Amino acid sequence: MSDSQPDGAGDGVAVDFGDDGLVPAVAQDADSGEVLMLAYVTEEALARTRETGRAHYYSRSRDELWEKGATSGHTQEVREVRVDCDADTLLYLVDQTGGACHTGHRSCFYRTVDGEHVGERVFDPDAVYE
Amino acid sequence: MSDSQPDGAGDGVAVDFGDDGLVPAVAQDADSGEVLMLAYVTEEALARTRETGRAHYYSRSRDELWEKGATSGHTQEVREVRVDCDADTLLYLVDQTGGACHTGHRSCFYRTVDGEHVGERVFDPDAVYE
Repeated sequence: MSDSQPDGAGDGVAVDFGDDGLVPAVAQDADSGEVLMLAYVTEEALARTRETGRAHYYSRSRDELWEKGATSGHTQEVREVRVDCDADTLLYLVDQTGGACHTGHRSCFYRTVDGEHVGERVFDPDAVYE
Repeated sequence: MSDSQPDGAGDGVAVDFGDDGLVPAVAQDADSGEVLMLAYVTEEALARTRETGRAHYYSRSRDELWEKGATSGHTQEVREVRVDCDADTLLYLVDQTGGACHTGHRSCFYRTVDGEHVGERVFDPDAVYE
């Protein structure tokens, strides 16, 4: 994280966390390629993710660092973190336990904008979140 | 777009464009599953995308509506638009012509945060952008 060369040469890419200190992070299933969710990441959340190998995010509504699955058990083991060309968006390649979505779906993107239900429900949220 | 039911029943999902009028949209290759890019979308950009079947975004730096590939020819035909559980993030499933990234890579996520180059370069940006 000490190298700001835009082509990623050297020992790391300096992520641009911007004025609000947040970047969006897309979580993708490392095996199936399914896009699971998008959440926001602070510098601290990224550091914890890299240290622990488990996905951490920052909850804007609760205003706190958040380890994915700490409550639900539906953790994300992070195989790789990628960064985009502008270094202001992250891609987490993960092994998802259970479902990524609090609604019980495998992916948060379980419906089309037309309202068609296309996603798989893999757990009962009432049994996981009390 | 007239239905605000959170479960997506009815004729559409009301996207929450928030205070700044923007939502992030992830573009994913509809066949390979590769995550290609993330950009931002206004209500107008989403409407144009749905009307034309070609991906439109909003450029925050240029402050204008933007049709992907209008300059480069590297268009995205949109097969489906998905929306996440909170209705504040979109997923475009696309057929990408050429590369999504202005650097010439197929995907903007062509490197890890450690600086390792993992993406495929599919065109020479100097030959496309003058």
